[in-house]
Amino acid sequence: MYGLIGSFIATPGSRDALRDILLASTGDMPGCRSYVVYEDTNDENTLWISEVWEREEDHRASLQLPEVRAAIAQAKPLIAGFGAHHVVRPVGGVGLS
Amino acid sequence: MYGLIGSFIATPGSRDALRDILLASTGDMPGCRSYVVYEDTNDENTLWISEVWEREEDHRASLQLPEVRAAIAQAKPLIAGFGAHHVVRPVGGVGLS
Repeated sequence: MYGLIGSFIATPGSRDALRDILLASTGDMPGCRSYVVYEDTNDENTLWISEVWEREEDHRASLQLPEVRAAIAQAKPLIAGFGAHHVVRPVGGVGLS
Repeated sequence: MYGLIGSFIATPGSRDALRDILLASTGDMPGCRSYVVYEDTNDENTLWISEVWEREEDHRASLQLPEVRAAIAQAKPLIAGFGAHHVVRPVGGVGLS
């Protein structure tokens, strides 16, 4: 499995909009076993994401899906910067579809 | 929902053992909607966890479950330190049981 844990910093006042864009594009992504969006409780502009993919290739392919490309284009102007970015190897647990 | 994203640093050589302890204790935790363990790909001693709970109280109650208490006792000597620790508010996505 292939995973990512990362954070985004939204431009001031746009975290909700960025969150909704991130959530709307997750409907049908082949190889996606978990994709959770979180609001930081300490920083009102920060969002977190944890992602679990069957293979790294599935993640890469997802970035080419029309709905994901559209979401990225919509999201870009709302992103002030990136925070954490960790490539991780999921090894199990609860909630892997 | 209530969530945690964090990392542990295992004592040298014990990451696999720590990982197995973390995974073994996740069987039946009321209110747990996701609990994924990851190996860091850049640091051979680091593990990551993402957790999604229905409520903060469910997380707190899980720490009192006999199997979780036993796992914590087993894990403690294998933990050299803690890295990231973020309290987060899960807002949706894929793989929330």
